Formats: sequence, C-alpha cells, structure tokens
Amino acid sequence: MSEVTLSGTDTSIVIVVLCIAVVALVFGFMFRREVLATSPGTESMREIGGAVQEGASAYLGRQFRTLGIFAVVAFFLLLVLPADDLAVRIGRSVAFLFGAGFSATIGYLGMNLATAANMRVAEAARNGNRDEGMRIAFRTGGTVGMATVGLGLLGAAVVVLVYRGDAPVVLEGFGFGAALLAMFMRVGGGIFTKAADVGADLVGKVEAGIPEDDPRNAATIADNVGDNVGDCAGMAADLFESYAVTLVAALILGTAALGNDGGLTFPLIIPAIGVITAIIGVYLTKAQPGVNALRSINRSFYLSAAGAALASVAAAFVFLPSSSADLDGVSSRDLFGGGAAAADVNPALGAAVAVVIGIVLAAFILWLTGYFTGTESKPTNDVARTSLTGPATVVLSGIGVGLESAVYTAVTIAIAIFALFTLGGGSLIMSLFFVALAGCGLLTTVGVIVAMDTFGPVSDNAQGIAEMSGDVDGEGAQILTELDAVGNTTKAITKGIAITTAVLAATALFGSYLDAIIKAVSDAETAEAEAIWDQFLVFDPRAMVGMLIGGAVVFLFSGLAINAVTRAAGAIVFEVRRQFREKPGIMDYSEKPEYARVVDICTRDSLRELATPGLLAVFAPIAVGFGLGVGALAGYLAGAIVTGVLMAVFLANSGGAWDNAKKIVEDGHYGGKGTDAHAATVIGDTVGDPFKDTAGPAINPLIKVMNLVALLIAPAIIGLTYGSGANDWLRWAIALVAVVVIVGAVVVSKRRDIAIGEAPERAGVISGS
Amino acid sequence: MSEVTLSGTDTSIVIVVLCIAVVALVFGFMFRREVLATSPGTESMREIGGAVQEGASAYLGRQFRTLGIFAVVAFFLLLVLPADDLAVRIGRSVAFLFGAGFSATIGYLGMNLATAANMRVAEAARNGNRDEGMRIAFRTGGTVGMATVGLGLLGAAVVVLVYRGDAPVVLEGFGFGAALLAMFMRVGGGIFTKAADVGADLVGKVEAGIPEDDPRNAATIADNVGDNVGDCAGMAADLFESYAVTLVAALILGTAALGNDGGLTFPLIIPAIGVITAIIGVYLTKAQPGVNALRSINRSFYLSAAGAALASVAAAFVFLPSSSADLDGVSSRDLFGGGAAAADVNPALGAAVAVVIGIVLAAFILWLTGYFTGTESKPTNDVARTSLTGPATVVLSGIGVGLESAVYTAVTIAIAIFALFTLGGGSLIMSLFFVALAGCGLLTTVGVIVAMDTFGPVSDNAQGIAEMSGDVDGEGAQILTELDAVGNTTKAITKGIAITTAVLAATALFGSYLDAIIKAVSDAETAEAEAIWDQFLVFDPRAMVGMLIGGAVVFLFSGLAINAVTRAAGAIVFEVRRQFREKPGIMDYSEKPEYARVVDICTRDSLRELATPGLLAVFAPIAVGFGLGVGALAGYLAGAIVTGVLMAVFLANSGGAWDNAKKIVEDGHYGGKGTDAHAATVIGDTVGDPFKDTAGPAINPLIKVMNLVALLIAPAIIGLTYGSGANDWLRWAIALVAVVVIVGAVVVSKRRDIAIGEAPERAGVISGS
Repeated sequence: MSEVTLSGTDTSIVIVVLCIAVVALVFGFMFRREVLATSPGTESMREIGGAVQEGASAYLGRQFRTLGIFAVVAFFLLLVLPADDLAVRIGRSVAFLFGAGFSATIGYLGMNLATAANMRVAEAARNGNRDEGMRIAFRTGGTVGMATVGLGLLGAAVVVLVYRGDAPVVLEGFGFGAALLAMFMRVGGGIFTKAADVGADLVGKVEAGIPEDDPRNAATIADNVGDNVGDCAGMAADLFESYAVTLVAALILGTAALGNDGGLTFPLIIPAIGVITAIIGVYLTKAQPGVNALRSINRSFYLSAAGAALASVAAAFVFLPSSSADLDGVSSRDLFGGGAAAADVNPALGAAVAVVIGIVLAAFILWLTGYFTGTESKPTNDVARTSLTGPATVVLSGIGVGLESAVYTAVTIAIAIFALFTLGGGSLIMSLFFVALAGCGLLTTVGVIVAMDTFGPVSDNAQGIAEMSGDVDGEGAQILTELDAVGNTTKAITKGIAITTAVLAATALFGSYLDAIIKAVSDAETAEAEAIWDQFLVFDPRAMVGMLIGGAVVFLFSGLAINAVTRAAGAIVFEVRRQFREKPGIMDYSEKPEYARVVDICTRDSLRELATPGLLAVFAPIAVGFGLGVGALAGYLAGAIVTGVLMAVFLANSGGAWDNAKKIVEDGHYGGKGTDAHAATVIGDTVGDPFKDTAGPAINPLIKVMNLVALLIAPAIIGLTYGSGANDWLRWAIALVAVVVIVGAVVVSKRRDIAIGEAPERAGVISGS
Repeated sequence: MSEVTLSGTDTSIVIVVLCIAVVALVFGFMFRREVLATSPGTESMREIGGAVQEGASAYLGRQFRTLGIFAVVAFFLLLVLPADDLAVRIGRSVAFLFGAGFSATIGYLGMNLATAANMRVAEAARNGNRDEGMRIAFRTGGTVGMATVGLGLLGAAVVVLVYRGDAPVVLEGFGFGAALLAMFMRVGGGIFTKAADVGADLVGKVEAGIPEDDPRNAATIADNVGDNVGDCAGMAADLFESYAVTLVAALILGTAALGNDGGLTFPLIIPAIGVITAIIGVYLTKAQPGVNALRSINRSFYLSAAGAALASVAAAFVFLPSSSADLDGVSSRDLFGGGAAAADVNPALGAAVAVVIGIVLAAFILWLTGYFTGTESKPTNDVARTSLTGPATVVLSGIGVGLESAVYTAVTIAIAIFALFTLGGGSLIMSLFFVALAGCGLLTTVGVIVAMDTFGPVSDNAQGIAEMSGDVDGEGAQILTELDAVGNTTKAITKGIAITTAVLAATALFGSYLDAIIKAVSDAETAEAEAIWDQFLVFDPRAMVGMLIGGAVVFLFSGLAINAVTRAAGAIVFEVRRQFREKPGIMDYSEKPEYARVVDICTRDSLRELATPGLLAVFAPIAVGFGLGVGALAGYLAGAIVTGVLMAVFLANSGGAWDNAKKIVEDGHYGGKGTDAHAATVIGDTVGDPFKDTAGPAINPLIKVMNLVALLIAPAIIGLTYGSGANDWLRWAIALVAVVVIVGAVVVSKRRDIAIGEAPERAGVISGS
C-alpha cells in the first residue's frame, strides 16, 4: 500500500473534477443534438451518406469483434503481472477494460456522428448557408472533443477517488487499455482509409482521368468510409489515449514528487480547467462573413489556450506549496538527490511554469506544422515548384521538407524538456513530474484540437457526398471547397500537436518506468541494488543495444504499415480495373459500379494487416525486457521515443506538404490541372497518403503502448533477475515466446506479399467466399 | 604521460607491422603498373575517357583547395584543445594533417586510376577479352584497397612507435583528419555524382526518350565524372577513414583494457593479418570461363575472410594473456568493476571470439544487403512488380524494403554488440575494447571490400565510354553489361559493410569518449565526481534531450544532402533543356552538346553545398557539449549512432532495391523497356539516387566525425564545468558561437532554394562569369 492518500479537501477537489467531467459530457450531448436537429439533405445525398455510414459501421463493428480477443487476453495477462495486492491487480484489469472501452466508444461516436454530419454540412452548403455548414462541422468535432476530455477525466477521477494512493498503478491499466485500442484503431483505420484513397486515386485520377469522388469510380464510397474510420474514429481514439496516458503519467509522477501536497489532485485540476476553456472555445467558433474560416478557428484555439494558461498559473499558486521542503508524504526514493523533498525548488512556481511551457509548446508546434505544410508557406511552394522537373523531384523535395520539419520539431521539444529539467532543482523525479505537467498543460487544448481535427473528415465527406449526388453547385460548391481546404489544414496541424503530446507523455511514462524500477529494486531488497543502476548508463552496451532495437522497431512498424497500404491499394486497383473492364457501361453512367465489394476488400485487408504491427508493439518490449534486462529495456524505450518522434513528424509533414503542393498546382500554378506538373504532384500526394495518415500517426500510440508495457512488466523483470525470486530460465523462456510471436507475425505478414501480382484472382476468391 | 609504454618485443612487433604496411603499398604500386600497362583503347574512347579524367581532376583539385581552409582552421583549433602536454598537442595536430592528407591521397589515387582503367576495360571488352577486362577492373580496386590498408596501418604504426603510451591521443588527430576529409568528399562527391545522374536521367531517359549514356545528352560526361569523384574517390576515402578510426578506437580502448599486455600492439596485429589475406584475395580473383564474375569475387572475399579469422584466433592466443588478473599497466579507472584487470575474463579467448564475431558479421551483412537489393531476390522483385500500379507504389514499396532491411541490419548489429558485451566479464572498458576488436576483425576484409567497391564505377564508366564512342558492340558490349551488373551489386553490398564498420567504430569511439571523461574527471580532482555520472543515465532528461538532438542532426544532414541534389539536379535539367532548345542539331548528331558547362555547374554546386552539412557535423556536438554538458553530449552521440545506422541502411537499401527493380523491368519483366512500368521504375531509381549515393553513405563518416569531435572536446568541457577551472560564461559563449555558425550555414543554404525556379537565368549568369 502506498503512503499517499486523499485528505478531506483533496476528496472535495476530486469530486469537483468529477462534476466538471460530467459537465463536459452533457455539453457533448447538447452539441450532438444540435447537429442531428439539422436537415439531412436531399434523398440522393442521404442515400450516399447512408452507404458511407453503413460501410463505416460494418467496419468498426468487425474491428471491435477482432480486438475483443486481444482485450480478453490482455485482461488476464494483467491479472498475472505483479502489483501491490490482489485488489489493485483486479482494479488494474478492470480499468484496462474501461480504458479500451472508452477509446472504442469515442472512436465509434466520432465516426457515427461524422457520418450523420457530412450530409448535413452538404445540405447547409446547398442552401448557401456557410455559417450553418461551418457550425455543424465544428459542433460535430465539439461533441467528440467533449467526449474525449469528459471520459478521460471521469475515468481518472473515479479511480483516484476509489483507490487513492494506489490509483497510479490501477490507472496504468486504464492508460494501457486506451493506448492499445487507439493503436489498433489508428493502424486499422489508417490502412483502410489510405488503401481506399490511394487505390481510388491510382485508377481514377491517374489512369482513367476522372476527378476525385467521381461516382463512376468503384472505390469512392470506400474512400469516404475510410475518412470516417481512419481520420475520424482513429484520431479521436488517439487523442483520447494521449489524454488518458498523460494523466496517468502525471499522477504516477505526481504522487512520487508531491506526495500528499497535490500529487493526486493537481494533475486532475489542470485538465479540468482545460474542459471549461474548451467549452468556451467551441462556443466562440463562429463563421464570420468575409473572414477566413481557418482564422476564426485559430482564434478560438489561441483564446482558449491563453485562458487555460492563466487559470493554471493561478491554480498552481493556490494548490501547491512554495517550497519543496514543505512536501508531505514524499518518498525519499530517487535516483539521486534523496527524493523530491530534498530538491531546492518551489513546486508552485515550477508547476505554473511547466504548464505554461506545455501550452506555449502547443501553440508553437501548431504554427511550425502550419509553416511546413500550409499552402501559403515557402516549403510547400518549393515542393510544388519541383513539379516542373517531374515526379522524382517532387518526391525528393517532399522528403527533404519532412526531414527538415522533423528536425525543428524535435529540437523544439528537446529545448522544452531541457527547460523543464532545470525547473526540477536536482531531483530527477521532480524534473520528470514537470515534464508530465507540461503534457497536462498541452492537454488543456485537446477539446478544441479534437474539434478542429474532426472538422477535416466531415467537410471532406460533405464535399464527396455533394459531388457524388450532383445536387450541390454554384455558391454551395464553393462553400464546400473552402471548408474542405480548411479541414485539410486543421487535420495537418493537429497531427503536430498529437505527436508533441505523445513525446511528452512518453517521456513522462519513461520517468514512470524509472519510478517503477526504483520501487521494485527497493522491494527486492537485493544486495545488487547498486550494480543494477550501472546498466542504465548510456555508455553501457546493453543500453546501446536496447536503443538500436527500439529505433529499429519504429522503422519496422512504419514499414509494415506502409507495405500494408501498398498491398491493399494494389488489390483495390485491380478490383476497380476489373469493374471498368467487365462493366463497360460504368464510364457512360449506364451501369453502377459495385461499391460494396471495394468496401469489403478494404475491411478484410485492414483487419488482417493490423495484427502484425500490433503484436510487434506489445511483444518487442517483452522480448527485450525479459531477454536483455531492465537496462536494455530503458535504452529500448529511449531509442523508440527518439526515432518515433522524428519518424512521426517526418512522415506526417512530408505527406502534408505533398498534399498541399498538389492543391497549389490544382489552383493553377506551374501549369495547373491536367499538366505533367499536376500528374507529378498527384504521385507525390499518393506517396504521402500512407505516410501522413497511416504510418505517421500510428507511431503516437505505438510509443506509448511500448512504454506502458515496459511499465507493467518492470516489476516482474526485476523480480526474476535479482533477489530470491531470480529465475533466468523462466525469464529467457518468456523472452523466447515473445520473439517467436513477433517472428511468426512478421512471417505471416510476408506471405501476403504475393497479393499485388495475384490480386485479380484473389479478389475473385474473396467474392466467392 | 601515460603509464603504458612499449617493451622491446612490442617495438619489434610494431616494426613488423610497419613493414607489412609498406608491403601493402608495394603491392598496390604493382597492381597499378599492371593496369596502366594495358592498352588504353581507340582514339575516340581515349578522347571521352580524357574528358572524364579532366573533369574529375578539376573537381577534386578545386575541392581540395576549398577543404584546405577547413583543414588549416582545424589544425589550429586542435592545438588549442587540452591534452597531456605540448608535444602531444603538436603531434595530434600534425597527425590530423596526415590523416586528412592520406584520405585525400587515396581518394585522388582511386579517382585517377579509375579514370585510366575505365577505357582499358572497355578496350579489353572490345577485343572480346572478358578475363582481361575483369582483371583490370579488379586490380584497379586492388590498388586502392592496398593504399587504404597500407597508409592506414603505416600512420598508426608510426605514431605508436614515436608516441608510445600517448599514441592514442595523437591518433585522435589522425582519425579526425581522415574522417573529416572523408565526410566532405562523400558529401561533395555524392552531390556531384547524383546531381549529374538525376539531371541526366530526368531530361534524357524521361523527357527526350534517349538511352542512358547517349552522347546527345549534355550531362553524360558529368555523369561519368560523378561516378569517379563520388563512388570512387568518396568511397575510398570513406573506407580509409573507417579503417583509421577503428584503429584509433581500438588503440585507445586497448591501452585502457590491456595496458602493456598488447594494448598498443594487438590492435595493429589484426589489421596486419588482414593486409596479407587481402593481397591473397586480390590475386585469387580471376574470371573463370562460364562462371559468373560475381561468384568468383565473392569466393575470394569469403576465402580471405576465413583466412583472416583463423590467423587472428592464433594471434590472440599467442600474444594475449589468458587471464585478466595477469594484465600489467592497466588503469583501475572504470565506470564500474574497478578496471579491466578486475574483470573475470580470458583476454586471449575474448579477443579471438571478438575478431571472429567481427568477420562473421561482415559476411552476414554482405549476404543480408545482397538479399535486400539483389536482382534475384524477393524484395527487389516485389518492388519491380509494383511498377504495374505506377510510380507511387514503386516509391512506397522501395521505402518499405529500405525500412525493413534497416531493421534486420540494426538488430543483427545489436545482437553482435550484446554478445561482445557479455565477453567483457563485467568490465565496461573491456566490453568496449572487444567491440573495437570486432571492428578490427571486420576491417581485415577492407582490402577486398575496397577492390569490390571500385569495381563498380570502373565497369560502369567502361560501359559509358563504350556506348558514347560507339566502338564496342556484339560480344564486347555483352561483356561490359555483365561487368556493369556485377559492379552494381558489389557497390550495393559494400555499402552494408561500410555502415557496419561505421557502427562498430562509432560504438567503440563512444566508449573512448567514456574513457576520456573518466580521465578528465579524475584529472579535475573535483568533489563532484560522483554527481557527474548521474547525467549519463538514460533516464536523465539531459541524456534524452541530447538523444533527440543527435537523432535530429542525422535527419537534418540527410535532408540537406537530398535537397542539395534536388536543387543541383534541377539546375542541370534546365541547362540540358536549354541546350536541346538552342542547339536543335544535337538530336540528329549534327551539333555537339557543351558537356563542359554541365560539369562546371555540378562542380560549383556541389562545392557550394558541402559546407552546410560539414559545418553541422563539426559544430553541433560543440553546441550540445559546451551548452548542455557531457551527459547531453553522450546522449547526443547515442542518438546520432542509432538514428544514423537506421537511416544509412534505409537510404542505401531503398536506393539499391529501386536500382535493381529498374534493371528487372529492363530485362523484360512486367512489360519491359518503354512501358509505363519501366517509366515507374525509372522514377523510383531517380528518387533512390541521392538516397543511396549521397545521403546514405555520407552518414558513415558523419557519425564518426561527431564522435571524434566529442572525444576531442570532452576534456575541455569537463574542465570548464567542474573543479577550479569552471567557467560557465565561457562555456555558454562557445556553445552560442557554435549555434550561430550552424544557424548561419542553414540559413545560407535555404537562400538557395530559389535555384530551381530560376535555374535558366542562373545558368546564364554562370556562363557569363
């Protein structure tokens, strides 16, 4: 049992937080009603929208059934892993189910509402009502945003109320559930959406020369379904997971650093402030005549962020002591410096600065991502200009932009972490807690960020439905084009935020891993305690080996995700070509393509493909940790975080730059639509699709899943390595099983490489089944 | 002064090594004479070959003049950096000049002989003499290989003889000179060769539809010049640098781990064995009728590697003691375990196993790289098959292959390092010494590897000259096609070896950095000695910050190199297009293109572009080290090594796979030449060009330059941070200057982004100047 508990005042604070979480859910419900109250449009729009909704629901339903198996296995594995007592173990397993369930719920809710909202936005545009269209799209996002923060805060607050000092361990289960499910949804949804998108573009735009969203293309419905299951459900689950995991890390490090002086409450107060400012932010967002929609969205973001910063600073000075010597119930465990209480630091001031650093970081990354991927900015225009020398230079310059943007993002985050470290006054635990708090600061913006992000697929789909139905033209079409362009940008910039929260959360989790080891080592009461720490030196070859493997896993994961899209897209190309060939009437509209078959292929392929990267994420840290020890595992996590942030930003921003470079050419520059320059940028955009919407964003949950697995298994590894329970054979046996699982999964995935060459036959097999 | 010195026996051993080094040089000279004694071919072949030689000489001459400035500055900076006494400081600076000079000499020699050999190979083929052609090409490589190992071993042996216990510090200068110059030659030559190649392909193959090496293309001569200054001079300098740096690291760690029991001699004995086996290997390589040339090259490689392994094992048992307790003159300094002497290890057995691990690793990586990039293997064929669905899928599948191959390479190296670590018996220094010894083992193959690598550009050029002169057809052309294909494969697989030596050398150097810090801390006699080590824990946010920045620098360096190629290639496209436009007679051979202008543009652009990545490599570790401390610098090096190996392999193998996927289609698969599938693979190949020949290979010297800079500045940082000489303002001032240099260099490089759009005018300016 932990020595940290909740005082009467603390209990009241947590109950207030709980109420704020419920308020968020109520507001989410209201926003949803508001959206659904609007007109769903013409019959043909409803028909198309219905097909999209049906496809998306079918996909998510099947995905959840597949993931249910994983969840049940994880539930029991968690029960087996050591923890303080059985009640905590059971609590952790149950919390896992809730974390996974909330993640799934938010994903489903986001998808479900978005598929209802898209036709309503199209209808509003058809009636020339720009304000209404924008309001529907943004309120849809608002609903998902409120659900994200509401459920995240609710789960954390309930666990803290029930488990008090043991809440951090129980919450590890909650965070793990959220992260694991989000990762699967990201990977599966990402493969679906980009297989459909790439497949549709390759046959439609490039080969047949018909426009995007043309109803003659059999892959269009699948493309629209993909937007909802990938960009919408996947991103919502991802941000919920970031939210939950950051809270978990902040509570773990908070109890270690602050003890009874706000350790269990302050990490909840900051996000609660964020809920209130997010509600205000969503209400503030209105379309103003003559003002670019993006500007008014950005204005709400900055206003709510500023509000959150001010309130958080006030909260820090109200709730936290001004000297670390006053801290009560703080463990003296620390790697050096004798615990947080011994540090020479002002917790109130430090926390205030940390939260502000987090919020400023969010704003800066938002700007930076916009700079590298926006249609107005120099890098994207440079990429567009290289279209004059063909597709190869477009690909190369986009890769250059992506690499460069990753550098600035990583260095910015590094500088922020260094600043947070110096706030810690010599206590490693205190430093790491401040990193977690900066993550909480960043999270105060999540409500608005989710709303911004969801705006993207909703307006994209609205345009798709309008185009396919043929019912919207003139002013309406223009409104939808504007909203779609804004949606593209918000989608791109929120990705920057998502990876930044991921890095802060992962760094904080990494700190929690340290705390877990300190605890396990002191529990093991082993004589080797001193020697254990040697393996954590960066010079130690074990740490270097771990780093190499950790970095390699991020590469493998990215490669698997990209390959999965290439394979699935190839199958779709063959299927659409087959339909064009066998139904010649499609081109003159006398025959209807079989949309459902393409949706079916996407569903099957993405569900089949998501297992390998998922198993890799869970079993690689197990193999390294049990096989090579806790030092190698620490190196592994460090290598994965470093390579992960660089790759995630590189992939996301290359993709974003290609996407907008294509738009620049389509707007008439460098020859405009139909020229070789345009074809070159279409190729660039296609390369970027799995970069920015499959591999890149899936790295966020990946690094957190791996950190959480490490955190959960650390006590078991220590127990099997040192002290009376040491058992090398068992340790190696576990590692071997993990290696076998990974190798097996990769080999199975390799078998599928034949897909593209044989796709026509294979598609036949699928239809026959 | 160090406590390690040379006994009488040791001195005799070093003198024998010196003689073997001289023997290598003599054999190199003989091989060279043999090549030059053959017939240089028809007049038209000699004319074209002469133009290539002239262009290459002019480029290298100008490059050396530019780099001279850098060398002089570095010479004086090295004088200022602290070392044991003035004699050592001067020795280090002079050794720097020798290292740089040897690197330049080998690069120049390689280029010079290759440009003489290419026409001779073409002539031999013209006469239908396959054996002779192959012998000339391989002996050319043999000359460069012998120069590499001869000069490397000569330099190290002389320094050991003169400076004895202080040799490691002096050799840091030697290694730094070699690495710095190699890096510049890699970057500059890489930009030159790929700007010319990409530019030539984009206009020639893609736009004008004329074959590669067609004399109507104004960029062909530049393309051939590029093969020599990039693939030939750059690679030779790179492998020399790997050789020198690994020797340096082995000697530094050898003195720390073995003291007077072989610390200064054993690291020289292993490469000396390699010299002898390499000479045998070169003699063994003969073309046999009916046997694939690649097979006979591979056979010599494996035979000489096996010979080196056997001899090294024998040497270990002869020259090293069988218990670490017997070690004499070993420092008790170690991070844990009380020094190498206290470790429970058999140095003879450990060293024998370490060398064998290195040699086996070389053979395995050779196979692995061949598997991922060979025309016969599954991954490359999969990439070729995706050409059926267009260029985007070709690019994506190639990226997938590259990412995956990086994973297997990194994990293999990680496993090797872990095995070497376990040999160390608890002494960190001993473990790291074994890593360095594995590097030495790997280096025994360098003589043959350089020969294999040089084979590539020589046979490529021979084919180019044959095609341009029009003098070779029928059987001769067939011989050249075979040799060219073999050359492509040897070039690709030697890259795998180059990066593996780089990782082992960098890991060993990283260990040397540890040794430097241990030494500096004990010299500083500071009370903070204990606290200093805290910052080296992977958990410490400083280490994490360093890792993020280290990884980011590798991305920035890669991005800069790729951008430089894109820019320079764009300028060449515009120039060739201009020539086609203004000289309409070129297409019907009635006018001759101005080859020299394209060579001129390549020369100017690549010299201008190499400064930024070069400055980044040198000044980034200075900024991190002085600004954030030795812990952050250690993290920086770790981050750079991990990200560096992954990126280097990814870039090299994606490029290799695209190159051979194109060849597969050109051999008639998936439609063959002239189809859309072929065009798709040409685009993939063009994207891969700067990957595999500019950015990827330049990462090898990059990570070593950064490690050496860290090693050189570590005592200064410790001195300014701790103890009586502490001076934070000076420390930060140095960091600030370094940051300003980097930012300035990047900003200047950004200014050039306008190049592509304005290339026609700019080219006009160049011609007018």
